[in-house]
Amino acid sequence: MNILIIGGGGVVGQKLAKKLLERGQLDGKPIDKLTLADISDPAPVEGAETTTCDISDAASVAKAITPETDVIYLLAAIVSAHAEEDFDAGYRINLMGTWNVLERARELGTCPKLVFTSSIAVFGGEAPDPLGDWSVLNPQGSYGTQKAMGELLINDFSRKGFVDGRGFRLPTITVRPGKPNRAASSFMSSIIREPLNGQEAICPVGEDFLHYYLSPRKCVENLIKGAEIPAEDLGQNRCMLMPGRTWAIKDLVAALENVAGPEPVKLIKWESQPDIEAIVKGWRWDMHADKALKLGLEADASFEDNVRAYLEDDKPAA
Amino acid sequence: MNILIIGGGGVVGQKLAKKLLERGQLDGKPIDKLTLADISDPAPVEGAETTTCDISDAASVAKAITPETDVIYLLAAIVSAHAEEDFDAGYRINLMGTWNVLERARELGTCPKLVFTSSIAVFGGEAPDPLGDWSVLNPQGSYGTQKAMGELLINDFSRKGFVDGRGFRLPTITVRPGKPNRAASSFMSSIIREPLNGQEAICPVGEDFLHYYLSPRKCVENLIKGAEIPAEDLGQNRCMLMPGRTWAIKDLVAALENVAGPEPVKLIKWESQPDIEAIVKGWRWDMHADKALKLGLEADASFEDNVRAYLEDDKPAA
Repeated sequence: MNILIIGGGGVVGQKLAKKLLERGQLDGKPIDKLTLADISDPAPVEGAETTTCDISDAASVAKAITPETDVIYLLAAIVSAHAEEDFDAGYRINLMGTWNVLERARELGTCPKLVFTSSIAVFGGEAPDPLGDWSVLNPQGSYGTQKAMGELLINDFSRKGFVDGRGFRLPTITVRPGKPNRAASSFMSSIIREPLNGQEAICPVGEDFLHYYLSPRKCVENLIKGAEIPAEDLGQNRCMLMPGRTWAIKDLVAALENVAGPEPVKLIKWESQPDIEAIVKGWRWDMHADKALKLGLEADASFEDNVRAYLEDDKPAA
Repeated sequence: MNILIIGGGGVVGQKLAKKLLERGQLDGKPIDKLTLADISDPAPVEGAETTTCDISDAASVAKAITPETDVIYLLAAIVSAHAEEDFDAGYRINLMGTWNVLERARELGTCPKLVFTSSIAVFGGEAPDPLGDWSVLNPQGSYGTQKAMGELLINDFSRKGFVDGRGFRLPTITVRPGKPNRAASSFMSSIIREPLNGQEAICPVGEDFLHYYLSPRKCVENLIKGAEIPAEDLGQNRCMLMPGRTWAIKDLVAALENVAGPEPVKLIKWESQPDIEAIVKGWRWDMHADKALKLGLEADASFEDNVRAYLEDDKPAA
C-alpha cells in the first residue's frame, strides 16, 4: 500500500500521516510507503517520505503521483478568506489543482483511490434548513464554489473509472494546533488554543454564533474510515458531509472553562470584525451527515472532547 | 442594446435571434445590434450579424465579446451523448468554454448580462423526488457535470460583480426542427417530427417512459424573460429550472394523433436501444420549477401545443 498525502504539510495531513503509520495498514493492507507532499517541503514525520508538489502544475503532479500510488489524499487548498481575496489563486489551486490530480490519475489508468476534502462552505444561500445529503450546494464564496466543483469532478471521474474517489465536506476543524491561518474560521480555534497557551485571542463574532465543528482527531479517524468504505457502498454521490456537531460560541467557551478552569476564558477578547463576520455568516450550521454516519463516520461526543484532544495531542510544552 | 448569442447556429439560438429582432427591444431598450456566433458560421438571420467563435479558445472569445456587448446568451455546448463519448471535448467546450466567456467578461470589467443554458441533466442519483430549487445537483453523466459546474461559476462570477449572470436548466426541447443530433434525447423530437414529415422514426424507450419537456417557442420566450428579470429578484442562486411539463411517451403519441390524425403515429417504430436508454434512464422527470414560475417563466399548456408550434413554426414546406 503506497499512500500519498497532498497537503501533507498541513495540520490534518501531518496528523493523518502519523495515525496511518501508527496503524501500519489501511483497508487491511500493510502500508509500504507514505509520502507527504506540499507546496513547500512538509515537516518530517518519522517513517514518511516528503516531497514538494504544486498541484497547479500538471508536471509537478505527475512527479508526485506515480503508477505505484494506491491511495491519494487530496487535502491541499487555498483557504476561504484567501480564495475570496485572491480570485485567481483560488481557481488555480482549488479547481485546477484538483483537475490536475484527477487528470494524472486518468492518464495513469491505475484507478487509484482518492480521498478529497471538501468543506461545509459548499452550503449557503436560501436553501431551507436542515441541510443534508439531498440539499443543493449553493456556496456563497469562491472557496465553497471551488470545492463544490471539485465534488462534481470527483463524481464524474469516478463514474468513468478513472479514480475511486470519495469526498468529505469537513466541518470547521477545532481545536487546530499552531498559528492562525487565513481561513475566515481561524478564530474558532484561536479562542480556545491561545487562552490554553496563556495568550489573548480575539473573538470577532457574538457568543450566540452557531457553527458546525469537528476535532482534528476525529477528522483524521474519519478520513481513514473514508478511504476504507467499499466503493459500492458510496452510491451515486461519492461526496458527503463529514459528521460534526453544532455549537454556539458560548458552548465552546463553557467547554474551555469546564476542562481548563476559569482563567483561560478571561483571555478571550470580544471585538467585532465585519469582514470576517460577512464571510462566516454566509455559512450554515443546521446540517446532518446521515449518509456518512450510516457509513460509520463519527462526530465528537462533546466540545470538551475537542479541548481535551488539543491538550493531549498538541499543546506545546511550556 | 448590443446582444451576442453564442451558439447562435443552433435551433434555440436561431429562434431566439428572430424573436428578439421581431420584438426590437430587450428590457425596454432598443436592440441596436444582434450577433450570432457559433463554431462555424451560423445560418443568416435577417437583421443579425454572424461570426465564428470557438469558446474553447480565449482569443476567439475575446474577439466575439467586446466592451460594447451588453447581453450574452451562452447557448453553445457539446450535447449529452457527445460529451459522454468524448470526455476531453466535453470539458474543453462545456466547462472551459464557459470559463473563457466568464473570464472575458471579468477582463472587460463591463459586467455584461449573461444568460446561461444549463440542463435538467444536472439532476440525478439518489436524491428523492420531487426535485426542486433546493435539490442537490447530482448529475450522472459528464454533460450534466459540466453544466452543474457552469452554474457554480455563473453564481460566483455574478457574486463578484464580473457578470450579471442567470442560468436556466432547460427541459428537453421538443419538437426540435431539423435533423437528429447527438443528444441522447434526440428521439424525443424525432418521434413527432419525422412522422409529421412522412418519415419513419425510432423510439428507443417504452411508451411509459416519463420525461420533462418544453417547446422551442416557450423556451425562447423564457430566455427573453430570463434576461429581463431584475438582478435583485434572482436571490442567492441565479440558476434555476426552466418550467416544463412531465409527460409519458404515450402522451406525446396521443398528442401527435390528436393534432395530426391517425396516420403519422404509424410511422413510429419501437426498437429498444440500450446505450440511449442507459443515459436517459439516469435523467429525472419529477421536477418543479417554483422559482422560475414565480419569476414569470412558463411551461406549455399541453403537448398538443408543442406539436402545433412545430407545424406553425418549423415544418418544412412539402
